[in-house]
Amino acid sequence: MSLVQVNTEGGVYPIHIAAGRLNALAQSIPASTTAIAIVTNPTVDGLYGDQVRRALEESGKRVLTIMLPDGEEHKSWSTLNVIFDRLLAERLDRKALIVALGGGVIGDMAGFAAACFMRGVRFLQVPTTLLSQVDSSVGGKTAINHPLGKNMIGAFYQPVAVEIDTTVLNSLPGREISAGLAEVIKYGMIYDSQFFDWCGANMPALRQLNAPALAYAIQRSCEVKAEVVSQDERESGLRAILNFGHTFGHAIESGLGYGQWLHGEAVGCGMIMAAELSALVCGLPPAHVHAIRELVIASGCPSVPPAWSADKWLELMQVDKKTEGGQLRFVLLPHMGKAVVQTVEASAVREVLRRFESSTQE
Amino acid sequence: MSLVQVNTEGGVYPIHIAAGRLNALAQSIPASTTAIAIVTNPTVDGLYGDQVRRALEESGKRVLTIMLPDGEEHKSWSTLNVIFDRLLAERLDRKALIVALGGGVIGDMAGFAAACFMRGVRFLQVPTTLLSQVDSSVGGKTAINHPLGKNMIGAFYQPVAVEIDTTVLNSLPGREISAGLAEVIKYGMIYDSQFFDWCGANMPALRQLNAPALAYAIQRSCEVKAEVVSQDERESGLRAILNFGHTFGHAIESGLGYGQWLHGEAVGCGMIMAAELSALVCGLPPAHVHAIRELVIASGCPSVPPAWSADKWLELMQVDKKTEGGQLRFVLLPHMGKAVVQTVEASAVREVLRRFESSTQE
Repeated sequence: MSLVQVNTEGGVYPIHIAAGRLNALAQSIPASTTAIAIVTNPTVDGLYGDQVRRALEESGKRVLTIMLPDGEEHKSWSTLNVIFDRLLAERLDRKALIVALGGGVIGDMAGFAAACFMRGVRFLQVPTTLLSQVDSSVGGKTAINHPLGKNMIGAFYQPVAVEIDTTVLNSLPGREISAGLAEVIKYGMIYDSQFFDWCGANMPALRQLNAPALAYAIQRSCEVKAEVVSQDERESGLRAILNFGHTFGHAIESGLGYGQWLHGEAVGCGMIMAAELSALVCGLPPAHVHAIRELVIASGCPSVPPAWSADKWLELMQVDKKTEGGQLRFVLLPHMGKAVVQTVEASAVREVLRRFESSTQE
Repeated sequence: MSLVQVNTEGGVYPIHIAAGRLNALAQSIPASTTAIAIVTNPTVDGLYGDQVRRALEESGKRVLTIMLPDGEEHKSWSTLNVIFDRLLAERLDRKALIVALGGGVIGDMAGFAAACFMRGVRFLQVPTTLLSQVDSSVGGKTAINHPLGKNMIGAFYQPVAVEIDTTVLNSLPGREISAGLAEVIKYGMIYDSQFFDWCGANMPALRQLNAPALAYAIQRSCEVKAEVVSQDERESGLRAILNFGHTFGHAIESGLGYGQWLHGEAVGCGMIMAAELSALVCGLPPAHVHAIRELVIASGCPSVPPAWSADKWLELMQVDKKTEGGQLRFVLLPHMGKAVVQTVEASAVREVLRRFESSTQE
């Protein structure tokens, strides 16, 4: 088993990474827990629900399951209320523990519900997609979407632990593996150029679900994420670099309607766009732009953005949470393995969008 | 001007208490603020909206006003969404400041909106009722109600400052003054028996809005509340004593429908009931029970609870946030000026309810 430690003001907790970890979940239940509510969806419940209930019941606590509809389009207040209604109807109290069993949508909603229920109860992250294992389950970002923007309503709220069972990836569709790999290679781009190179060399093995390769990729991704959020839990500075590719990516998700592209797919394409913007405004060498594009393509994510007008792109990006006083801010790479956050003139963004426009017409 | 300091892990901030303080609000606006959103209701806006907008515009920032419907029955997600919709439509960003201008309902909702909007923006409390000045604006509790319980969905989230203008109390109906005085005398009961005696001696002056008496009562209340929440921000122990009278009080509010009795009225009556329970299970002397009843009556709050069956009372109290593992927990007074939190057998609660039942029949 690998252990990665997260140290934030909002909480210090372990990330456990192991094959078969789902069977050991009772080890992470705080003794004072009065009841456990598993939040999941029918797909994940069908695959792992019984196994997880059995493992949690070993703690001797009452265990109940709250089923949410599947998909990003349900990451809304009305779905969140399904959790609150059930927690209250079942009389769960402040010492209850919420278990997020699923991908990023489940983790974000169960975590936000835990942050708000009775002003905060404990929760455990049990991510079952590659994307949530390497990204959304670590660091305490929780949220729901608003019709005017993704993740606009939420909280920074840390789990008591993150439990990653690498065997669950065997049941994941290839498209979801690719979406997760987009976030994996992101860590190389923004923080560790050696890891970027390692990803380049091991991409075929990763897509074939080679167990040692995946375990290392997950561990290194969690290490980078833990280092970054331990320095800046509430994203007053450094943490924003984790959003590399996300400003374009969120625009794609929001403009197409949530759930059309997977989050990781949108981020993958968004990283190519952000690399082009980096080349234009802070000198990322063309060879690195090329390497980023090639690795995104190798990961299986789309590399061609939707063919929208620049006005539409800018409109969609205005609601990004990094925006300050109406000015667009982007995560950019001055060179491979190093990210910065800076304000960018709309004219530079338009120039990059024009390049993609012509590339899609050729 | 009086200054009371609050020191919590979630934030260190001042409470300013002065006649005319509304005119000086620009002093508390952080320099990095990009825009200011005042959250208020039509009643308060009609009385103080222009004055507050003028004062805030002195900061040179953009100021907009978000109007919510008036009343506890609107402390819901749909009303909260009025704030989110407007903040997003107006493109406010992470450096926005939310100003809660109003009573406890406005403060709770504006504060919770600030806690959740983009995972947290700054907010300023400008309480305009006695109850919110001495209680709900201090300490960072924010929440909305759920059909199954009051304040069930919320956050601990501290403001950047609390600005108390004592002159606003002159526009307050007598019933709201009484409701606020219930919380004032509570601080004497749970923490400072001398202050309880002072309240007894000065109750007529307080109800007549004698300015020096009110200013002292507000300052001492804020001092006690600040001391308590500075020791225990997230209510893992001590802070719960602030809920003296609230378990019965919340049951009254919830059972009658929110907004029938004012929160302070329900707490006033609830404190008489909690005093009786204290006498029964932890030895509060009958003379103190009597003094508490007399001072609640002198404050102008109701002293006779609704005539419900014990089963109904217990059902309503089960969802209280202090409940743990199904056991009822109450704040009780072993003697005047000292409060404890403890588990109480349902049979003892039934005994106290029986006494009130017979008193209402006589």
